[in-house]
Amino acid sequence: MSSEISRGATSPRYVAIAAELRDRITGEKLAPHTLMPSERELSETYAVSRMTARHALSLLENEGYVYRKPPRGTFVAEPRVPFHIGSFSDEIIRAGRRPAAQLLWASEREPSASAQAAFDMPSTGRVHALHRLRFADDEPIALETTYFPVELTPGLLDQPLTGSLWELLRSHYDVVPVSAHATIQSIVIDDTSCARLRLRSASAGILLTRFTYDSTGRCIEFARDVYRADRASFEVEARIPIPVDGEP
Amino acid sequence: MSSEISRGATSPRYVAIAAELRDRITGEKLAPHTLMPSERELSETYAVSRMTARHALSLLENEGYVYRKPPRGTFVAEPRVPFHIGSFSDEIIRAGRRPAAQLLWASEREPSASAQAAFDMPSTGRVHALHRLRFADDEPIALETTYFPVELTPGLLDQPLTGSLWELLRSHYDVVPVSAHATIQSIVIDDTSCARLRLRSASAGILLTRFTYDSTGRCIEFARDVYRADRASFEVEARIPIPVDGEP
Repeated sequence: MSSEISRGATSPRYVAIAAELRDRITGEKLAPHTLMPSERELSETYAVSRMTARHALSLLENEGYVYRKPPRGTFVAEPRVPFHIGSFSDEIIRAGRRPAAQLLWASEREPSASAQAAFDMPSTGRVHALHRLRFADDEPIALETTYFPVELTPGLLDQPLTGSLWELLRSHYDVVPVSAHATIQSIVIDDTSCARLRLRSASAGILLTRFTYDSTGRCIEFARDVYRADRASFEVEARIPIPVDGEP
Repeated sequence: MSSEISRGATSPRYVAIAAELRDRITGEKLAPHTLMPSERELSETYAVSRMTARHALSLLENEGYVYRKPPRGTFVAEPRVPFHIGSFSDEIIRAGRRPAAQLLWASEREPSASAQAAFDMPSTGRVHALHRLRFADDEPIALETTYFPVELTPGLLDQPLTGSLWELLRSHYDVVPVSAHATIQSIVIDDTSCARLRLRSASAGILLTRFTYDSTGRCIEFARDVYRADRASFEVEARIPIPVDGEP
């Protein structure tokens, strides 16, 4: 089928087979838990060795597109929720699911050095800290640790804390989030958090370190969110600067 | 030291200790490979058990802030390069390092279904596919698989392919990237790629699926980039929409 004009070595065959299977899963939107072709079937379809077929399926398993249940076979995985940096509740609703939050703890305390820096706050300042488990339907997706200056959110700990905190900021405190900055990292999730997220120990996660600002540029929220790597991806839009002097 | 007003259970002690150590590493910009306090020292400083001190160090290790070299101790890890979605070369230069690329293979071929969809191209269309290993100084950081429509990039395979491809697009083809959309996922890196990135087998990675557009909104590049999770983080800016009817 393939006609190639190449320079250097060509791409490995298992990569091309994985790409085709990945396109079928995402392009044809194969239903989760659909049985994938077996190694034997793949090796016949593509005229490759069983080993090559196995490599293709492994690549997709590593990327989270399929999961294996030996001896039954390989199945299409649940798709990740495509999050934008923004309101967890909004993103879950957009994905056609029901958002929920369980409050694990909440406290008023001294700021950590990073919270103090984020809020440009004296060391005598105080913050509200909240730790919440976030759900899509009944499935745990993320653990949020959120900090607000007490000055901006007096009495927060007496409020209902199982809905959208941004909505609470807007409606109760007249504080309106308008922009956010986040750093996205891939991490290993600690054991306590794995248990809460119903994951095997040492599962992969995405750590979001977030700063939220109001229209005056004041930082109103500092947060560290841990998302399940198998249930969340992040969508990013970027403008590309045009280089001034042609380099690079 | 800490004065807390709490609701529900309080945050675990090891999380607070880890937060303080993390702040010292990032806030005071501790040099990579600096020796961290031992479990014994931490347990004395914070008046906690050795187990609690160990949990705090484990959390930081899982997040990639420290690495352990028993029996010598725990050390500050190399910081991640804070990437924005954009030119790899620009980002590495901004981090004060020297960008480089090694071409692994390049070919002209039929588009995969996802490349065909990205470029809104007939199935008879052709794409240039490039696979490159990207470096910061001499350290491998990412593997890029990049696709361009042949129509836009005639003769691309005869060009030098070890510099900035965007610069080549601009200077040689008069094609100017102005915006990008990317999906960020956490994955396990396949064995071949781990070897190229000088990682242990089954190391964590960040998969970027990228679409690049010119000023007319035409997709000019489709790419799948795999970054080392221990060397890259992604910085994201977002505008937050104001809800129309107050919900959510």
